[in-house]
Amino acid sequence: MVNRQWLCASYVPPDEFPTQKHFELVEAPMPSPQEGEVLLRTLLLGTSPAQRMYVTKESEFHIKVAPGEVMSGRGVAEVIESCHPQYQVGDIMEGTLGWQEYVAMSPDPQVKDGSHVTPVKRVENPVRPLTTVLGLFGQRAFSAYVGMVEIGDTQPGDQVLVSSAAGGVGAIACQLARARGASRVVGIAGGEEKCRWLVDQGLCDAAIDYRQEKLEAQIGEALPDGLNVYLDNVGGDTLDAALQHLAVGARVAICGHISTEYLRPRPPGPTHYYNLLYRRSRMEGFFVFDYLSRWGEFEAQLRQWYADGLLKLTDHVLEGIERTPDALTSLFTGANVGNCVVRVAPDPESVPAL
Amino acid sequence: MVNRQWLCASYVPPDEFPTQKHFELVEAPMPSPQEGEVLLRTLLLGTSPAQRMYVTKESEFHIKVAPGEVMSGRGVAEVIESCHPQYQVGDIMEGTLGWQEYVAMSPDPQVKDGSHVTPVKRVENPVRPLTTVLGLFGQRAFSAYVGMVEIGDTQPGDQVLVSSAAGGVGAIACQLARARGASRVVGIAGGEEKCRWLVDQGLCDAAIDYRQEKLEAQIGEALPDGLNVYLDNVGGDTLDAALQHLAVGARVAICGHISTEYLRPRPPGPTHYYNLLYRRSRMEGFFVFDYLSRWGEFEAQLRQWYADGLLKLTDHVLEGIERTPDALTSLFTGANVGNCVVRVAPDPESVPAL
Repeated sequence: MVNRQWLCASYVPPDEFPTQKHFELVEAPMPSPQEGEVLLRTLLLGTSPAQRMYVTKESEFHIKVAPGEVMSGRGVAEVIESCHPQYQVGDIMEGTLGWQEYVAMSPDPQVKDGSHVTPVKRVENPVRPLTTVLGLFGQRAFSAYVGMVEIGDTQPGDQVLVSSAAGGVGAIACQLARARGASRVVGIAGGEEKCRWLVDQGLCDAAIDYRQEKLEAQIGEALPDGLNVYLDNVGGDTLDAALQHLAVGARVAICGHISTEYLRPRPPGPTHYYNLLYRRSRMEGFFVFDYLSRWGEFEAQLRQWYADGLLKLTDHVLEGIERTPDALTSLFTGANVGNCVVRVAPDPESVPAL
Repeated sequence: MVNRQWLCASYVPPDEFPTQKHFELVEAPMPSPQEGEVLLRTLLLGTSPAQRMYVTKESEFHIKVAPGEVMSGRGVAEVIESCHPQYQVGDIMEGTLGWQEYVAMSPDPQVKDGSHVTPVKRVENPVRPLTTVLGLFGQRAFSAYVGMVEIGDTQPGDQVLVSSAAGGVGAIACQLARARGASRVVGIAGGEEKCRWLVDQGLCDAAIDYRQEKLEAQIGEALPDGLNVYLDNVGGDTLDAALQHLAVGARVAICGHISTEYLRPRPPGPTHYYNLLYRRSRMEGFFVFDYLSRWGEFEAQLRQWYADGLLKLTDHVLEGIERTPDALTSLFTGANVGNCVVRVAPDPESVPAL
């Protein structure tokens, strides 16, 4: 048996995004678990825009992957052999597996960069489809939750705007806004197809195609009374357009700024930031990992809202480890809709269905 | 007896600031109070940067003064004749008197633009010097209070940066930061003289002259661990420089953006706004009048801090109604230090001393 792995083949220049050519699929020997380790079989690999920074040499991100190393990434795996007393074969684990079919590692917290990190941890009460671990009940959903609930403080009757609304975080954020009682949810996405998807899936009341002219005017038409909450994933012109439509007391939650993150020199900031003054509004950034201690609480609320019919799955599954770079690429080309994951092996039948 | 009044003589172009030439000092007849009115003798007139907007035709501000009208402004007055059952001669009043020696008006709330407004109200427990009504226990201090306490949420040990630190709001804000337990307070001001004043008066631990080169580097030197709270009065390059030195979890309270407010077209926003994400920080604007219902609470706290020796007066008094336009001009030329007021008549001896 071999262990197929995707290595970083070369750094990605800052003005490019990662594609197949930056990675190499190799066959490595099967790993053997040492004492205290578990042998994991990768079932799913997730995708995150942050992974682009891992392989961008110039990035200041704390995770870096050099050419020749296994690409880093989070995923879901099954324990197939255990040399650790607290873990059994069949346990479902989640964490930083890397882009590979098998990995042997210790699930015990380790000290890295001065902090305790758990590279992989057991999923309590996992359900099929296991995409929920990466999507609806996972980090992506927790990002949406922090943005919409903790920072955005969405209240009943609020009018909400979400950028990258068809993306992994955005598609959940739109639903969370509704679950919190928002009276109107407007999504921004790239292209007519994604906009139609947002409305057809019932995620948004209206969708705005930022590739069309006059984004700012479109926001004004979609939200004539202004917005109370804006979840910003993109920065740049989109953020500036949104800032022109703040209602008094609005909350802008900054989750990312993908449209400008890789531009050098840094472009100017949003001209209309001064509306934070005139509309007495707030703009605040967040990292979901700052809320690690509250993920259990967030998951319980998300499961309750799912049970109440307020949330739905928006998974977009690519089949086979061969597709992993394509999945990452799709986050930057605008091809992706929803929670983009790669299925490396089927969900075990032993996991109960949702 | 005559009533000297300053009329608006001409609108101020957006690229100029108000000076003597935009106003005209005239002699009007003494007003007579009608039933329900009081006759007020102006003692002090305050200054506010917002007054520039009153006489800028292009401004979107809700208060406007046209050529030929008495210039609007807040001040402190004494009741010298009363035709209102609840007010007595000798009562000290504060409110929108206009730039004039005498005015007859009703202190009863009136409906204006759909809201109840009280043009002038009684000062409870006034103390000499009455400049406290406009400064240390007045709207200016309440602006500083909202910025430092409500929005900035200054905590013991915080490192605090204040722009326009030698101005009316800034000089109080620096002291409030200390009163809340800040471990280091750094002020930004224009010119060596003001910087020396800030340190000599004990308002700041260090002061930065923004007219010198490399403002951003100066902030980095003065606050090597970054800032926890920044009170921004100016916007523009100063805000951008401050955003490069946010500590994790910082709060930026936006009180104004005087360096860019009158520029057309609107200049770009702060490039480093994205540090709100990387440093998980918050930027929020406020209007002090949104906190009207809490002014009593703020005043009680300020009086207590004054009694505890944590606050001092920073009044800058110009003598005579003739100086009123000069007082306003001084806010824009950088000549002003502290709480700039015009004394129109002496404080009555009947008012107890602080």
